[in-house]
Amino acid sequence: MKHYTRADIDGMNKIFRLNLINSCTGFKSANLLATRSKDGISNVAVFSSVTHLGSNPPLLGFVLRPTTVPRNTFDNIKKTEVFTVNHIHRDMISDAHHTSAKYDGDISEFDKTGLSEEFKNDFFAPFVKGSRVQIGCRYQNEYFLKENGCILVIAQIEHLFVQNDIQLNDGFLSLEKAETVTVNGLDGYALPTLLDRFEYARPRE
Amino acid sequence: MKHYTRADIDGMNKIFRLNLINSCTGFKSANLLATRSKDGISNVAVFSSVTHLGSNPPLLGFVLRPTTVPRNTFDNIKKTEVFTVNHIHRDMISDAHHTSAKYDGDISEFDKTGLSEEFKNDFFAPFVKGSRVQIGCRYQNEYFLKENGCILVIAQIEHLFVQNDIQLNDGFLSLEKAETVTVNGLDGYALPTLLDRFEYARPRE
Repeated sequence: MKHYTRADIDGMNKIFRLNLINSCTGFKSANLLATRSKDGISNVAVFSSVTHLGSNPPLLGFVLRPTTVPRNTFDNIKKTEVFTVNHIHRDMISDAHHTSAKYDGDISEFDKTGLSEEFKNDFFAPFVKGSRVQIGCRYQNEYFLKENGCILVIAQIEHLFVQNDIQLNDGFLSLEKAETVTVNGLDGYALPTLLDRFEYARPRE
Repeated sequence: MKHYTRADIDGMNKIFRLNLINSCTGFKSANLLATRSKDGISNVAVFSSVTHLGSNPPLLGFVLRPTTVPRNTFDNIKKTEVFTVNHIHRDMISDAHHTSAKYDGDISEFDKTGLSEEFKNDFFAPFVKGSRVQIGCRYQNEYFLKENGCILVIAQIEHLFVQNDIQLNDGFLSLEKAETVTVNGLDGYALPTLLDRFEYARPRE
């Protein structure tokens, strides 16, 4: 195996380090976060850090990098309290990736990509049309991570829309059926195939 | 699409809600966290919440659920400051899932599964033998998430071991070549195939 020490990592070319460290923790979720400003300008941006935090109450979190593009997303969330999380499926990856380009706040990424917005249930933030899992979220809190200036945003799930045929009888969403993708590193998009599901694990004698 | 409101979610059967809410945020990383107690007893447990936090310095985080099994992991980390993160590949999923069973702290999951430990570079915590990406981490901080009692643990990467043939020239680890799996919900393990990688996105005219 190749062995990189901390000194090796610190001494790397920046791009090499970004590619390596972004892929070393494993696959990441692939979601579009959509918001709307008070002025009515929509914003949508790809995030690979959305994480399940709990089911009761239903909570999720995501991480904002200090130097990262989608500050518009955060500004809108702070002012309107709501945003949506929308799964990226295989046909959306090119448009989804393009939302990481640095557009000014008065430009909607919905106008610069093949992505379309839809509004429903009087929710202020737009959902991404065609996304097979859509979550309407309300901002609840944030934690400043002083180690590198990231912000962990925590939100409650208020609305959950799922395409009919992807849910099993026990509640499980088959992300394979939804063709939801996953992110490898900074820029790789991969499509998973289910290998197996397991029973609740109990100790062996 | 099916529409679940917050009231619907709160009123669900517990297992149904766990399956639904655990799968609605998308695919999760699949890692084994391994530690060793001061008494020398090893511990290994599956985690789906390991998240990239930054590359410079190289930081990762993971979330401990208040009601979740692997308190041994946390106790060992607090006392010894170190742990390892090890990718789960397709041949390891059954053993990896079994580490979620509730064993007492004086029992090593390495003795109850087909998983084996290995020690290297004088690192106090064991690595999982055969894992194709292994990370030696040092505890740095924790944040108590008051919304549901979870703890976000933040750690620095001190050692990174990668199987030779999975790394591309630009640093990117091909998790497809590593056969690293991803987690769907509580209990589903899936194997991704790379669709595409994209250039750094720049605004369109």
